[in-house]
Amino acid sequence: MKILVVNAGSSSLKYQLIDMDGEKELAKGLVERIGIEGSKLKHSAGDKKTEIAQEIPDHEAAAQLMLKILQDPEFGVIKSTDEIGAVGHRVLHGGSAFTASVIVNDAAKQAIRDCFPLGPLHNPANLMGIEACEKVMKGTPQVAVFDTAFHQTMPPKAYMYGVPKMYEEKLHVRRYGFHGTSHRYVSRRVCEFLGISPIGKKIIICHLGNGSSLSAVMDGKCQDTSMGLTPLEGLLMGTRCGSCDPAVVQFIANNPLNDDGTPVGHSISVDEVLTMMNKKSGLLGISGKSSDCRDIDDLASKGDPNAKLAQDMLIYGIKKYIGSYAAAMGGVDIIVFTAGIGENNADLRAQVIDGLEFMGAKIDTEKNKTRKEAVISADDSKVTVCVIPTNEEIMIARDTLDLVTTGKVRDN
Amino acid sequence: MKILVVNAGSSSLKYQLIDMDGEKELAKGLVERIGIEGSKLKHSAGDKKTEIAQEIPDHEAAAQLMLKILQDPEFGVIKSTDEIGAVGHRVLHGGSAFTASVIVNDAAKQAIRDCFPLGPLHNPANLMGIEACEKVMKGTPQVAVFDTAFHQTMPPKAYMYGVPKMYEEKLHVRRYGFHGTSHRYVSRRVCEFLGISPIGKKIIICHLGNGSSLSAVMDGKCQDTSMGLTPLEGLLMGTRCGSCDPAVVQFIANNPLNDDGTPVGHSISVDEVLTMMNKKSGLLGISGKSSDCRDIDDLASKGDPNAKLAQDMLIYGIKKYIGSYAAAMGGVDIIVFTAGIGENNADLRAQVIDGLEFMGAKIDTEKNKTRKEAVISADDSKVTVCVIPTNEEIMIARDTLDLVTTGKVRDN
Repeated sequence: MKILVVNAGSSSLKYQLIDMDGEKELAKGLVERIGIEGSKLKHSAGDKKTEIAQEIPDHEAAAQLMLKILQDPEFGVIKSTDEIGAVGHRVLHGGSAFTASVIVNDAAKQAIRDCFPLGPLHNPANLMGIEACEKVMKGTPQVAVFDTAFHQTMPPKAYMYGVPKMYEEKLHVRRYGFHGTSHRYVSRRVCEFLGISPIGKKIIICHLGNGSSLSAVMDGKCQDTSMGLTPLEGLLMGTRCGSCDPAVVQFIANNPLNDDGTPVGHSISVDEVLTMMNKKSGLLGISGKSSDCRDIDDLASKGDPNAKLAQDMLIYGIKKYIGSYAAAMGGVDIIVFTAGIGENNADLRAQVIDGLEFMGAKIDTEKNKTRKEAVISADDSKVTVCVIPTNEEIMIARDTLDLVTTGKVRDN
Repeated sequence: MKILVVNAGSSSLKYQLIDMDGEKELAKGLVERIGIEGSKLKHSAGDKKTEIAQEIPDHEAAAQLMLKILQDPEFGVIKSTDEIGAVGHRVLHGGSAFTASVIVNDAAKQAIRDCFPLGPLHNPANLMGIEACEKVMKGTPQVAVFDTAFHQTMPPKAYMYGVPKMYEEKLHVRRYGFHGTSHRYVSRRVCEFLGISPIGKKIIICHLGNGSSLSAVMDGKCQDTSMGLTPLEGLLMGTRCGSCDPAVVQFIANNPLNDDGTPVGHSISVDEVLTMMNKKSGLLGISGKSSDCRDIDDLASKGDPNAKLAQDMLIYGIKKYIGSYAAAMGGVDIIVFTAGIGENNADLRAQVIDGLEFMGAKIDTEKNKTRKEAVISADDSKVTVCVIPTNEEIMIARDTLDLVTTGKVRDN
């Protein structure tokens, strides 16, 4: 069966068509600037690439264009949309309602809507993507795969915040965690790769990309993760500040600065502070130059002190989370690096593991020179350190296939 | 020399008179409800105790009453205020200006005033205490000892937040840490107690009281600590929530609940959210019953699920900080428990250390039955786990004595 994987943002729609017979990617693409001047589609199928610039007013038009190019005589890979057996959608926030992927029906859509307050930027867009696909592919099953679902096995001591308990009971304020599809894929794949069972194993996964999160996985189940109610918490990220004293929000709301460092002169709203914490902070805010870790590394190597600081803060933060999750699980057997930074930044990996010998982790400098699936720890390292490239799309496609064929999701 | 140690709050003044010849406590007391109806002084000198209820309109009156009772024929311990060689004041926030204690002069007072925005509740009160003592003990040297000073050796990677760097450069928004006098005393005392030098040693100090913080100390210098810009960050405390997703501040500001769990119906200010996070959260907010760890333990042992959750969250939080600080320092040699909970709660200590054998820490259940200075780890534990009762007053008195006699503070 061919499965279409869709990730809809507020003005974008990313897709990938996968032939589940062999889990082969047939085509992928991105519709950008939906409803904004300059909208276009970028599409590729194998070596063939094309770009179409045209007015794309809404997600339904974007979905139509996606189907058109997938059936295109030159750039397409299917003859009819009937070949698409089902569509799997990435949905950011499933709250505590969803512990696994589901076939989309009215109740599921309502539950996604109920999570709008928890994922105000993403969930409405994700639902728009689902509804657009429903309209242009009538009768094709739609599946929702939640970024939060994998983390729903966390115990209360890990997901509760210290605010009055009624906020969790009445308004569901708690740690949810994100990147769950990636953490789930990687935690399974690393065991497959090593030829072991996840049962009895303590795994720490470092998903390091533009957004970054760590998870502690024991017996294949998530025990803790660094993102929280929203994807802001945890590590320093491209443009997100990560964890800080909640009083920092208050201090900045009452003493805001303009981008040039001059005082605003009056207080600003908490929403404005959070926008700044999400969009202008992190590597960008510390370096003052770029949110891209490759730029930061480049600047730091040329002696830029703020880029070096941003780098140090990121590495130090990862190291501390690894220590805390090892303590939480009573040790660690496997540490995995994944996603853009985790897969490609060997220096960062080496610096993160440096000094963790006391807990049994030691890197092999030669083995660490990889961007592929590999063990990168020394032969005498008690902890196995690995690189495992993530693949959220395949996980979404597998869940979608499982749900439309067997009605339930395999624990894979 | 006799040193008077003063800790002034907004409506209280705590004092202790110490004879530095033998470091012997001569008398101590507390003036409560200054400027509020029902003000009184509680005083004790050895076995003798007294209480005086009278109108105490301001801190100057409180200081006068303190001096009067210290010279009282029955409850006093000195004949004249001339016997008081100097006064040492606890000051909450020294910002990054103060890395050690100082003799109070106009410049120091101005610097304490400059830190009012960073410690809005405590610093003004601390300065009132200093100025009251200056007035009633003209000519007696006054010394300021800062709760933040010990932590000023933290490297930038540990003290910077991920918000735009200008907030640190222009407004000094960064991690400061608190309980510094306690962390300093305990980190020195534990080495003295074990007969070792702090040089080359990696120590984690768990100061667990109504307010709680951990610190990572290497070569006698603070490397990291859990409290931040304010004493709100870090662990779950009596009434403080500790760390959480900064977005929780936004969510609660926009969706506040009344104490009975009903919606307020309109948004509230960030200041109101922070007050709730400081005063109604933590053990109190989770249990719904008490901010006192003894009550929580009692309730949990009787099966109260929310008290059990609060207990679990606290223990889990301490465990994770220990892991992260061990990772930050590349291991740990000594773990110390101090302050109200740390000194008295053997069960909590045992649960915190349980599962840390992978990093070399193992408790001895029998040795752990102590409230005094003791090694409580097993004979075969690579990490030495200790209980060391804290003594901030003696540290303040020592700094004060040093400054007035030699002009500088010993590293003790």
